[in-house]
Amino acid sequence: MSVVIFSGGMDSTVLLAYELDQSHPVEAISFNYGQRHARELASAKWIAERLGVNHEVVDLTNLRPLLAGSSLTDDSVAVPDGHYAEESMRATIVPNRNAIMLSIATGWAVSRGHEWVKFGAHAGDHFIYPDCRPPFIYAMDLAVRLANDGVAEVGIDAPFRTMSKTAIAKLGAKLNAPVELSWSCYKGGDTHCGTCGTCTERIEAFADAGVPDPTIYATQVTASS
Amino acid sequence: MSVVIFSGGMDSTVLLAYELDQSHPVEAISFNYGQRHARELASAKWIAERLGVNHEVVDLTNLRPLLAGSSLTDDSVAVPDGHYAEESMRATIVPNRNAIMLSIATGWAVSRGHEWVKFGAHAGDHFIYPDCRPPFIYAMDLAVRLANDGVAEVGIDAPFRTMSKTAIAKLGAKLNAPVELSWSCYKGGDTHCGTCGTCTERIEAFADAGVPDPTIYATQVTASS
Repeated sequence: MSVVIFSGGMDSTVLLAYELDQSHPVEAISFNYGQRHARELASAKWIAERLGVNHEVVDLTNLRPLLAGSSLTDDSVAVPDGHYAEESMRATIVPNRNAIMLSIATGWAVSRGHEWVKFGAHAGDHFIYPDCRPPFIYAMDLAVRLANDGVAEVGIDAPFRTMSKTAIAKLGAKLNAPVELSWSCYKGGDTHCGTCGTCTERIEAFADAGVPDPTIYATQVTASS
Repeated sequence: MSVVIFSGGMDSTVLLAYELDQSHPVEAISFNYGQRHARELASAKWIAERLGVNHEVVDLTNLRPLLAGSSLTDDSVAVPDGHYAEESMRATIVPNRNAIMLSIATGWAVSRGHEWVKFGAHAGDHFIYPDCRPPFIYAMDLAVRLANDGVAEVGIDAPFRTMSKTAIAKLGAKLNAPVELSWSCYKGGDTHCGTCGTCTERIEAFADAGVPDPTIYATQVTASS
């Protein structure tokens, strides 16, 4: 059985559907780390209910002052607009975020007797987020295997690590994943802004995949690629 | 500058003194993960004040239900008496604890601009705790370096990783580390029990080092080795 780190975004929603489609029993874990877009946690709850998946939400909001300097957790830093492949997007990095979430999820997996912790990192994340790249994933897998050596057999995987977000959008459509319930926008408004980095990626992925985009955007930008 | 993971126990107290003696500026971070022996956090506070070190305490008590099954965090599991080299001591393992603490400390280190996260794992911990052994330490160092690649240069070290606790007791005496303020006992009473695994290790280390043991034990056991 696996634990899936589940943000409530498009990638981890498709990952949940993918694991269920492969008849892998899963439990989902979400983290409230004081992100500006905590709206994604409501999406996570709805999607987990829709898919009939047990869902745990971990409150890490008291880590927020420790992880300062990111636009996602620090109100004094603005969320940049534009494409992931821009230097300005570095403002959306939360220091060591994925190692923190993966470590806690691994502790939960061990206490529940599960063998895998999976997360939705994909190739489109690589440019900006080092903690989504395969070398980190493999090193973290090794670290948690050694951390629990002789106690439990548990590892980390990111099945979409070499896939584009376009491929994920296609896979989601094929699996009938409830992406219409998912939340991407970093800005934390009532609707997707349509201009921040993750909205831009979402718009382009649906367009490139030839899949209807169910999302309502405050600013409707036509996909450029 | 370094972040030291500081339990308030003997090993991390000597580590703090050791880093200061080497003129390495340090900040200390402690974790309340719902451990039965949260008494150690009071010790951590006093020692950090004595040494003039900035000290952050992170409240992770809401992780307690996620990390069930350990005698340190689960009231339904008893703390075993005896020596670390006994099978019963496995009940004191908290699933993936060190990876969780190191990951959070690394996030803090990055946001503070520090280059190292150090912790007090030593050779005496190896038999029972896989997350104190050198292979884990090296893999975790690699994982956090890759997680922050291009963002920050930060790594993990355990300077005492090949030292015995006896050697740590000797070093503490040499450096005049305030070990008399430190707390080891897992049981969470008002005084050290003198019989649990970590009290046993503490008693033996002072005796073997030929260093007067300043600790008051509820049950005074003579060191056997």
